[in-house]
Amino acid sequence: MLKSPEHQVAGHRAQDGQLGPLVDGCGIFYKPLQGDGRGDAEVAFYTSLFSHPAVPPHILSFFPGFHGTLVLPASDASGPRPHLALDDLLAGLRSPSLIDLKIGGRTWPPDCPEDYFQKCIVKDRESTSVALGFRVSGVQIQDPAGADAFWRPSRAAVRRYMVEDVRRVLRQFVSANPPSPDQKPDCALASAVYGGPDGVLAQLMELKAWFEEQTLFHFYSASVLLVYEKDAAVAAAGQQAGKSSGVRMKLVDFAHVMEGQGVIDHNFLGGLCSLIKFMSDVLNDPEAGGRESIKVQLSCEDGSLENLGI
Amino acid sequence: MLKSPEHQVAGHRAQDGQLGPLVDGCGIFYKPLQGDGRGDAEVAFYTSLFSHPAVPPHILSFFPGFHGTLVLPASDASGPRPHLALDDLLAGLRSPSLIDLKIGGRTWPPDCPEDYFQKCIVKDRESTSVALGFRVSGVQIQDPAGADAFWRPSRAAVRRYMVEDVRRVLRQFVSANPPSPDQKPDCALASAVYGGPDGVLAQLMELKAWFEEQTLFHFYSASVLLVYEKDAAVAAAGQQAGKSSGVRMKLVDFAHVMEGQGVIDHNFLGGLCSLIKFMSDVLNDPEAGGRESIKVQLSCEDGSLENLGI
Repeated sequence: MLKSPEHQVAGHRAQDGQLGPLVDGCGIFYKPLQGDGRGDAEVAFYTSLFSHPAVPPHILSFFPGFHGTLVLPASDASGPRPHLALDDLLAGLRSPSLIDLKIGGRTWPPDCPEDYFQKCIVKDRESTSVALGFRVSGVQIQDPAGADAFWRPSRAAVRRYMVEDVRRVLRQFVSANPPSPDQKPDCALASAVYGGPDGVLAQLMELKAWFEEQTLFHFYSASVLLVYEKDAAVAAAGQQAGKSSGVRMKLVDFAHVMEGQGVIDHNFLGGLCSLIKFMSDVLNDPEAGGRESIKVQLSCEDGSLENLGI
Repeated sequence: MLKSPEHQVAGHRAQDGQLGPLVDGCGIFYKPLQGDGRGDAEVAFYTSLFSHPAVPPHILSFFPGFHGTLVLPASDASGPRPHLALDDLLAGLRSPSLIDLKIGGRTWPPDCPEDYFQKCIVKDRESTSVALGFRVSGVQIQDPAGADAFWRPSRAAVRRYMVEDVRRVLRQFVSANPPSPDQKPDCALASAVYGGPDGVLAQLMELKAWFEEQTLFHFYSASVLLVYEKDAAVAAAGQQAGKSSGVRMKLVDFAHVMEGQGVIDHNFLGGLCSLIKFMSDVLNDPEAGGRESIKVQLSCEDGSLENLGI
């Protein structure tokens, strides 16, 4: 029995008769192929990724498992349509907190059509992509009020996120207290989710090492998706031994992957390093008080040129 | 006695009565301050850099020594003008080979005026900046024919460099044979100049480690300048023990440095990582034959989606 996924924070949605992904409840996620070539491009990428001898096995674990394509009735009742069959990254989770982070200061490839470039560069400049090297595409956080209650900002609200909003949401994502304008995120689950040998930061570092070397693929508009359940993270945070929080980290959305042609993906790598620094800051400074001490001011409006570092 | 520098591959030139930098022959390089605020911005950066407690001393060695400002007669005979006093990076070298590499896929800061953005993005897309994360701004290579003979492509030629031209010039830069359309660069000096504990690659790695952490400065349109003398490199290449080639690596051109505001410079870092990969490729594969083996082809024009990796 195919249905629309219960938890989805970015991308097209199958609810309300739209074309969108479906899940079978047995661990497979079906993503309809767009008719404009993007679907074929994503299939070509998955096919190449999972068969290329130069991609190390431990790197494949950062991608959803790929099970080919399958023709299924489309969710918008438009008839049969090919779908990508992928692992359902939320399988088995009742109350997942999740965040979709679109990586790269630039979401357009070097040789793209002019109208696509114009569309992308506007979004890259209006969002935090240019400033941070990544932007939040969607987020939902389980509310402490109950397992089925979620804090989920609207897409319009997420689109307006500035640098400080991103900093805050990355703290809120690993906090036990609910989002509130009056209360700082407590970051109680930061060590359990971002830290530790299986945590997000360790996984991002592994991915970074690959991106420093790999020249096969350039990823435009792809995302890092983080998923965990608060119950498991709270249990892990309560242990001395650093039990795993079970956080899942996957790369998703490959409709705009290009051939690397012997050059590293400096755009994706830069964004990944920026995200790593943000998460390290959460881990190293959960009170968020340390940043003020390392600042410069380069303005010289009044003609004086003295160093104004605090 | 001030005069125009003999060896200069990028930037404004003082020859022929233009406004440009001067050297005193005793190790100091005088850079005239532009009247449009860029000069003041560069002075503000140097002042801040050399006085900020969070900048480690070993990082300062990657920058030209800074000796304040001095009012000097401008090279265009327009009268007295303030000049930045910096270390002359070519002091004591008779026949330097040098290359200026402008780092970053993007040379424009996030909040720049629209006309500046438009000017920069055109150059970034036309050059290799977007594709590689860096571009060559200028190069001169001592010709084996004689100490005072140099191979120096015109600025127009350098501006037209595509990815393969950059790959070739980074090989030619450390070759003993002269540039020629019929002969591959021999990369005879690669280990001496790029390799070894004091080589360019080791220095770039040290710089990279700082850029993964530092959130003080964002560098737009700044360059890595590499300088060495072939005689010293040939002597070093002939030794078993890995004697230093005396290569000098400095960051230069800071008229567009911005405050980092707690975010890493993902744009500069990405470009640095790309340059590191290019140099590693020269060192690991001086014959330039290995790249073909690690390729993918993601085209699916005929509808077939099979992996075409070679």
